[in-house]
Amino acid sequence: MDIDTKVHELVIVGAGPAALSAAIYTTREDIQTVLYEKAVPGGLISTTDWVDNYPGFPDGIAGLELGDAMRKQAERFGAVIELGEVMKIVNEGERKKLETTDGDVYAKIVLIATGSGYKKIGVPGEDEYYARGVHYCATCDGAFYRDKRLVVVGGGNSAVQEAMFLTRFSSHIDMLVRSDFRASEVLIHEMEKKFKDKITVHKNTTTDEIIGEQKEGLKFKTVTKVIGTDKISNKKIEFETDGVFVFVGLQPNTEFAGESGIELDKIGLVKSNENLETNMPGVFVVGDCRSGATMQIATAVGEGATAALRIREYLEGRKAGTSTLY
Amino acid sequence: MDIDTKVHELVIVGAGPAALSAAIYTTREDIQTVLYEKAVPGGLISTTDWVDNYPGFPDGIAGLELGDAMRKQAERFGAVIELGEVMKIVNEGERKKLETTDGDVYAKIVLIATGSGYKKIGVPGEDEYYARGVHYCATCDGAFYRDKRLVVVGGGNSAVQEAMFLTRFSSHIDMLVRSDFRASEVLIHEMEKKFKDKITVHKNTTTDEIIGEQKEGLKFKTVTKVIGTDKISNKKIEFETDGVFVFVGLQPNTEFAGESGIELDKIGLVKSNENLETNMPGVFVVGDCRSGATMQIATAVGEGATAALRIREYLEGRKAGTSTLY
Repeated sequence: MDIDTKVHELVIVGAGPAALSAAIYTTREDIQTVLYEKAVPGGLISTTDWVDNYPGFPDGIAGLELGDAMRKQAERFGAVIELGEVMKIVNEGERKKLETTDGDVYAKIVLIATGSGYKKIGVPGEDEYYARGVHYCATCDGAFYRDKRLVVVGGGNSAVQEAMFLTRFSSHIDMLVRSDFRASEVLIHEMEKKFKDKITVHKNTTTDEIIGEQKEGLKFKTVTKVIGTDKISNKKIEFETDGVFVFVGLQPNTEFAGESGIELDKIGLVKSNENLETNMPGVFVVGDCRSGATMQIATAVGEGATAALRIREYLEGRKAGTSTLY
Repeated sequence: MDIDTKVHELVIVGAGPAALSAAIYTTREDIQTVLYEKAVPGGLISTTDWVDNYPGFPDGIAGLELGDAMRKQAERFGAVIELGEVMKIVNEGERKKLETTDGDVYAKIVLIATGSGYKKIGVPGEDEYYARGVHYCATCDGAFYRDKRLVVVGGGNSAVQEAMFLTRFSSHIDMLVRSDFRASEVLIHEMEKKFKDKITVHKNTTTDEIIGEQKEGLKFKTVTKVIGTDKISNKKIEFETDGVFVFVGLQPNTEFAGESGIELDKIGLVKSNENLETNMPGVFVVGDCRSGATMQIATAVGEGATAALRIREYLEGRKAGTSTLY
């Protein structure tokens, strides 16, 4: 068969934890698997300083190291990781055509595992202190801020919920809301009632810059303050803080899927049924780009394993989810 | 408050991967958590020789070591593991009463994570070669038998499905069916059509004994043959083999749940909704004892993390699954 028209058994779009977990399972069972990754294998965790809550590592593990370990494990069983971006999936019935930056690729089954990024506010210091003072996931990184001061940026439901959650750890939170809340009345009321002492809300306040300094005995510069502007008085304000949590929305890496006719929810996450199947037959979805995602490595890895079992059923001509394991 | 009437925030029944994953998340967020385990923390994996497919360990990891790592991680964040068996859960509204071998215990929320065992055939050699020649999960251990001979015991749907799956690795399979197949006609037909050369079916054949020997250069005795009886001719038969896979059913550790009025499916696994809630308010379920379980560590760990997020919502007075993380 000509190399150009070879049909892979499985192409996985992405190479983060969900993708690599699926690949460990499929390749170990001799399902031929190629992963397309446009950036770095390991996904979002490779840019995460320290992963404290992925079960199996008592003292935590560096994100880069965990991503690398999963990649090696998948490669040991025969997974092939190609550098390239998938721009479109075309359903040709028995096979799918994937239009990539490296030309057309064909597969019997496609697994979408492109993840999501967090929306940034785009201010000086945001990238410099990323994962070392600037965070986007309270469940992941909140526990690093026991008895510390925090700034929370955002005014939607997630910002209010996560600010309340962060009071479990933080001694005091300044909440910077660009104009007014967009969160539900119920949530705002709950926050005002329960956390008045711990959360100080600053409406009509922009976040302009995140500033840090080199403290004695530390290798890295750490965040010390946030500079904002009160839009009413047009005055600069300084907020002393040990860290910043930004909750201004999720940015799912799913544009190519939407353009391929795969159904997305209103945030842009890929919809699926209980067997992780999308509306396009033979196309599955797992991890942080799936509607309902928890943005946790453990969950992504679990979905990857489950998807592999469903993909096996599909390849064997059974309806996904119909196998009896017992 | 008197120790006897203290109400824990969360009691987890079981201490396997699903339970420990949930505990890592809840305790890290200061949700006070006690686990009740009647045997050894780590669950079924602690009796598993080698875990090859849990993402994060490129060369695999000993089951005992993985279970131990998860236990240490949960304990680092403050999880308390008690030795004791939960015999009944009584719904007293705001709180649940758990009747244990150690007396009554109270909790706001209960997470059932007791797992499942595999049914055994109860013949000499079965326990001796457990996980070192005698296996119960093809997805977990099939890949250790590339180009090796196998014996499969069982005649139901799972036995037929798993035998077909094992042909990916095994050079030849003798399938021992005690009387006749109980599997669906479709599956039997598929096996006969596709795998006639690789699977030899022996109906009316009991499995009587699993025998091994010490081979040169190996530390352990390994399985070399299975002895059965042809029930028609009443003659003993020997099957040379490198391993035995037993598929005669699952044994969920859920009797106490059923007796507490928690809904089980026909196999005895605990039913749940998409938020991992059982029919008893405030009682959640994860892992191998949940209806729909895949019997994989990765999936169990993923469910544990998801349950922890749902439990947090529940404790905060929100309906599970309603949080906006983005």
